[in-house]
Amino acid sequence: MTVAEQAGRALTARRIDHVGVVVRDMEAAITHFTSRYGLTLDQDWTEPSGRFRLVYLVAGATTLQLVMPFTAGPVTAFLDERGEGLHHVCIEVDDLDAAVAAAGGRIEADPYLGGRGARVCFLSDRSCGVLMELTEPTS
Amino acid sequence: MTVAEQAGRALTARRIDHVGVVVRDMEAAITHFTSRYGLTLDQDWTEPSGRFRLVYLVAGATTLQLVMPFTAGPVTAFLDERGEGLHHVCIEVDDLDAAVAAAGGRIEADPYLGGRGARVCFLSDRSCGVLMELTEPTS
Repeated sequence: MTVAEQAGRALTARRIDHVGVVVRDMEAAITHFTSRYGLTLDQDWTEPSGRFRLVYLVAGATTLQLVMPFTAGPVTAFLDERGEGLHHVCIEVDDLDAAVAAAGGRIEADPYLGGRGARVCFLSDRSCGVLMELTEPTS
Repeated sequence: MTVAEQAGRALTARRIDHVGVVVRDMEAAITHFTSRYGLTLDQDWTEPSGRFRLVYLVAGATTLQLVMPFTAGPVTAFLDERGEGLHHVCIEVDDLDAAVAAAGGRIEADPYLGGRGARVCFLSDRSCGVLMELTEPTS
């Protein structure tokens, strides 16, 4: 199937990979979600460029991703405007490139390597007020 | 263990049961998430009192809950203030009553029957800007 044929097709979500929460104080957030709710610290990853620290907290097969920004950008703008809180939903698809083609250009930037070494892509529209990220299985 | 002994103990999250999204137009939201992302409509439930319509969209073992309010209250206040978007995270625990006791009074109201016939309870604090709901398995 060509890229043109893929454009406009529905993506097929395999599952919600994670829910992203933007925080100002990562240590306080880790303590809160682990001590109050019993979530388990899985991975703690700072982007090589130093823009973000991402911490993954798991509960069964589901994951909460804490995001703390270090440099000014969309995430600090979100913090300034709305404060700490729920930020995005990341859906796992079988094939990220096919999903990006299906999105027909409605992406913030080309896919890149995000947390946990996964290829990810944020979509640029925000229908129903929800920022959506796509990812694909790493193995 | 007494209620007093339970107060202050960590809850043990089994998994994220669902992520709640508040919407103004339920039909548009269902179309968006099913046609764009391939989520599957699972259950469509209107509270007996008519205050909310809840629609559950699934992807694998994970669930997005769409919430459309019909009467004025905290959810319409959320819509007025922030617009459509991510609203809460619901965590499944083994024993809701024990979890509520552990919350030590930090609940919005006593547990009640919510969507899909599950007993639920919203917590009243909003640390890290995240509204948390608790539920327990229905079977």
